Amino acid sequence: MGAARNTSRLKLTLAYDGRPFSGWQSQPNKNGVQDHLRKAFQNLLPTPVVVHGAGRTDAGVHALGQVAHVDVPSERFAPATWIAALNANLPPEIRVMRCQFASRDFHARYSAIGKTYRYRLWSNAILQPLEMGRCWHLPFRIDRELLSDAAARFVGSHDFASFSASRGKPDENTIRTIQWIDVRAAKDLIRLDLEGTGFLYRMVRMLVGSMVRVASGKENLAWIDGLLRHPAIGKSGYTAPAEGLYLLKVKY
Amino acid sequence: MGAARNTSRLKLTLAYDGRPFSGWQSQPNKNGVQDHLRKAFQNLLPTPVVVHGAGRTDAGVHALGQVAHVDVPSERFAPATWIAALNANLPPEIRVMRCQFASRDFHARYSAIGKTYRYRLWSNAILQPLEMGRCWHLPFRIDRELLSDAAARFVGSHDFASFSASRGKPDENTIRTIQWIDVRAAKDLIRLDLEGTGFLYRMVRMLVGSMVRVASGKENLAWIDGLLRHPAIGKSGYTAPAEGLYLLKVKY
Repeated sequence: MGAARNTSRLKLTLAYDGRPFSGWQSQPNKNGVQDHLRKAFQNLLPTPVVVHGAGRTDAGVHALGQVAHVDVPSERFAPATWIAALNANLPPEIRVMRCQFASRDFHARYSAIGKTYRYRLWSNAILQPLEMGRCWHLPFRIDRELLSDAAARFVGSHDFASFSASRGKPDENTIRTIQWIDVRAAKDLIRLDLEGTGFLYRMVRMLVGSMVRVASGKENLAWIDGLLRHPAIGKSGYTAPAEGLYLLKVKY
Repeated sequence: MGAARNTSRLKLTLAYDGRPFSGWQSQPNKNGVQDHLRKAFQNLLPTPVVVHGAGRTDAGVHALGQVAHVDVPSERFAPATWIAALNANLPPEIRVMRCQFASRDFHARYSAIGKTYRYRLWSNAILQPLEMGRCWHLPFRIDRELLSDAAARFVGSHDFASFSASRGKPDENTIRTIQWIDVRAAKDLIRLDLEGTGFLYRMVRMLVGSMVRVASGKENLAWIDGLLRHPAIGKSGYTAPAEGLYLLKVKY
């Protein structure tokens, strides 16, 4: 799969509504976002391409700034033409927002040095209809100060094994660094933004699930401290639903 | 239709996603928001009720704070129980957000002294997928300063006949007052909020359609001045699509 000399590497920035798709990764049912992208390229090129994504997103997870790279025949189209041609061949729930030529050594996944995610919570008995499928509906009031306190526990470098759903990789290094978590509330909506150097499988959803556990009074902050001090895969046990999660940005 | 002595008047604050419905008003196909509310009450009460709304919203128009009043048998339920019971009998795209008992002389429409609307524009070649059905997609850059200048022309009391789709009401008083219009842009999204004492049929959508006409360089500000100075029903001719419009609040 090495890039031939007569190819150019495209870096694509993608946005998608996670609801209609089976997640990022190619699926047997061909409904992964990756499948739709491959099909779009297939309509535009004589030979199939490999679409490399910065990371997988689960079914239902949204993206505003997913990144992918693809090698295409050189001088086929200018970036603006690639955007128009790909969008014409994609469902409207997936859009190529930006496109540029990248150097041969750029890799969507391995060149990434960080990612920013957003998680949206709706904390009220009644879910505002335009928020359906776009946030985690908590039909009760949560303690916003406790939520911020719980979030602060995760900032820094920790062994996050307790907040990962990885399976069958006993030797995986589960130490990750979270640079910052920003918690903002506007009436019933609470927005958690976080940036990290990398994330374990389902880690963001498990961090949020655990924060909410504390903010709703079911566990205390010492419980989080314990999970960080005595890491074991999946130990937290609480995973926030996919529809509240947004991949905002991949940093290179 | 007078309220009997043994009835109480409920004031309901409603939110709905405009897309699945045929607008606010009852329709022969029974898919007006009003029809769904009437059906919900019918499941809870022995006799049919009349649902009075603060104003009609067109098919596709969203609401975050529509108001309605309904007379129901006294002491049937407390307001919190009405909220739960109605929401259990409504599609999730319509929610009763608040409920309170109102005085006998409160009328959702005639007691209203003002309304606040929001209109959302997306000004970029590519529509971010999560914005589908929630804004007017303008696939080009518009001049934001001209948009604000055009908006400012409408503030105050004017004869807005040129910005109304009313038909067959030659004697209608078409003078209305707009208290303020607030234009805010964040990257590709432009948000227009406006408050007025009352609005003619399709007036907000025609004001926005005309502002965009100016902001995209197709007409100048003098054109708006002329339409205000020489009013005639529907003269502007430009109506912004329904899906960008939100009824935010009704003031009493």
